[in-house]
Amino acid sequence: MIPAGFRFAGVRCGLKNKRNDLGLLVSDRPAASAGVFTSNNVRAACVDYTREVVSKGGMRAIVVNSGNANCCTGLQGERDTARMAELAACALRLDPGQVGVASTGVIGQILDMSKVERGVEEAAGLLGDDPRPFMDAILTTDLVEKQASAPAGRASVYGVAKGSGMISPNMATMLAFVVTDAAVDGLDLASILRDAADNSFNCMTVDGDTSTNDMLLVIANGASDYQASEEELRAGISSVCLSLAKQVARDGEGATKLIEVRVTGSEDPKKIARTIAESPLVKTAMFGCDPNWGRLLMAAGRAGVPFCLEDVRLSLHAGGDEHVLFENGGPAPFDPKHVSVALKSDNVLVDLVVGAGSTESIYTCDLGYGYVRINAEYHT
Amino acid sequence: MIPAGFRFAGVRCGLKNKRNDLGLLVSDRPAASAGVFTSNNVRAACVDYTREVVSKGGMRAIVVNSGNANCCTGLQGERDTARMAELAACALRLDPGQVGVASTGVIGQILDMSKVERGVEEAAGLLGDDPRPFMDAILTTDLVEKQASAPAGRASVYGVAKGSGMISPNMATMLAFVVTDAAVDGLDLASILRDAADNSFNCMTVDGDTSTNDMLLVIANGASDYQASEEELRAGISSVCLSLAKQVARDGEGATKLIEVRVTGSEDPKKIARTIAESPLVKTAMFGCDPNWGRLLMAAGRAGVPFCLEDVRLSLHAGGDEHVLFENGGPAPFDPKHVSVALKSDNVLVDLVVGAGSTESIYTCDLGYGYVRINAEYHT
Repeated sequence: MIPAGFRFAGVRCGLKNKRNDLGLLVSDRPAASAGVFTSNNVRAACVDYTREVVSKGGMRAIVVNSGNANCCTGLQGERDTARMAELAACALRLDPGQVGVASTGVIGQILDMSKVERGVEEAAGLLGDDPRPFMDAILTTDLVEKQASAPAGRASVYGVAKGSGMISPNMATMLAFVVTDAAVDGLDLASILRDAADNSFNCMTVDGDTSTNDMLLVIANGASDYQASEEELRAGISSVCLSLAKQVARDGEGATKLIEVRVTGSEDPKKIARTIAESPLVKTAMFGCDPNWGRLLMAAGRAGVPFCLEDVRLSLHAGGDEHVLFENGGPAPFDPKHVSVALKSDNVLVDLVVGAGSTESIYTCDLGYGYVRINAEYHT
Repeated sequence: MIPAGFRFAGVRCGLKNKRNDLGLLVSDRPAASAGVFTSNNVRAACVDYTREVVSKGGMRAIVVNSGNANCCTGLQGERDTARMAELAACALRLDPGQVGVASTGVIGQILDMSKVERGVEEAAGLLGDDPRPFMDAILTTDLVEKQASAPAGRASVYGVAKGSGMISPNMATMLAFVVTDAAVDGLDLASILRDAADNSFNCMTVDGDTSTNDMLLVIANGASDYQASEEELRAGISSVCLSLAKQVARDGEGATKLIEVRVTGSEDPKKIARTIAESPLVKTAMFGCDPNWGRLLMAAGRAGVPFCLEDVRLSLHAGGDEHVLFENGGPAPFDPKHVSVALKSDNVLVDLVVGAGSTESIYTCDLGYGYVRINAEYHT
């Protein structure tokens, strides 16, 4: 369900070769908004600009381009970001302070503003209920579109994202835009979004790298006339963010499967899960469909979180079954060939218990030849 | 120069298929010793055993096997480690408390002690001045032998290492053994070794993973009758450790080049260097010979260390020249094709200045198809 009171557009303005590269998203009425931004010290002008728009309140629209990250472009880059907001505001009859700006693509190149200008104008004339042209406009080398929806009581939450596709000759950007027609009066939208991000995008890793342009925005316009409770809004936004994060991980560069690393323990299970999820030795073993419990335990062991091997239980859920690899201080009897076949599944859950306590998950993907090809040979 | 008063042996006892897999190293007189051990929480019995031997003082010999890491093997593993020390002590007419034990290879499999027993006996009969059979016995899938030597005043320091070659079906181990015939009376050998490790092996990363069995040992027997000064000993041991660490990085799995990431800045330049050196996007770009300054700055930016882009100067030293990629807040004019050709060199220095301050280096290698092949397809 697409929330009421939002319109979308996406066009090809020529910043990229073959796909849509400029998108507009607008609420037809005043709205509440919140954002989560890259923590990278090297970041694009649009990140600071949009953070400012969100902090002042009143963001109603987003203009986004792909094909050029407008990052490391100095004062000209700052001016071009502000100009993008102005162009969109003018076309949408809004104030520039009501427009967030996002960019993704090549670093270090000046944006061709004549193309952006034409694109914004054309997109403004095409605004409609269908989010797909907008969704397409934010993609780079993503193999699949990424969208998700969930209810927030009797209102709807809907989101789109782009993942870590690589744009020649530079790095990936994660963008996600969430809209809801719930009324959110009195609710702390920023806190709800931050929590949702912590449990979704911040629990997802493709290669541990963080882009200069990462951005997650939410706009809530109340068009459903339904006042959501905090629980409803949290549930809706969290569900959409988690679904989008999993889709981004599954579509990681060269990935053949989505891997959930779930760790239970008394001390910082998330740190253990993240260390496993970022281990190249684990990720290559998963690509090779190898139930390599040695690498999994090695990665867990180097997380810097103490545990006793005697308390460890490690299993893989794949192909509809659970396969226990290690328990009671030693390897469990299992047939490596049988488990290897199960690991051909495109969804694998690594389930590690190192003690009693809470359970945390990190989402990632495997590491295969495709990752090397995409990231080493893009310039050939 | 091989230090006086040490003998070496290496034999094939059958733990591996085609190469030497059991080694002995012994000082012909009492010696001082020190060790640095893996920080991994999951570790082999030999790590704890040898740490104990070192802490009690008097280690004079090392027995090492490859082909089986004797890790995650419970009480039986502990007994087998102690038995290895006993067998070596018996053959060398030493006390078991004078023998350090190291293992590398497959995790989770019980060591075949009858093979070890025969191997120790045979090796003891072959002890001699040539370190090569010992050096071979510790290698796994290393492509090249790794040795280094340096003076410590009028005495010698010599070391051998094995790197992160993979042993089916498990993980890599880094082992390094350093011997010197310097007399070290009154010197803090442990502190000197720790500092040398901090500036060599701890500044080296192939994929950020840490083995269960990593071990660096030094034995100083005074056979040269030369009392080294602290400076001489530090210089000798540091030089040997740094050379071995670079050799290990250069021989990383699938690596085509050694990369030194050198960062100058006022706040934690080593953290920035490590973040760059561990970035898969940087390492794949290096494999692709791509002067991708966007990825390098992105990785620097996510290290969590503040700096201003305006202060940044980034260059690559390769093929005998320096190529400036970024300065004065923006990309420098350079010919990507020209720099790409230079990057075909098997030695690349990434030189990043983010401000005035100290300079730190991290050593790594590139990430290519070979890494994926070795780590995903070893079981086929």
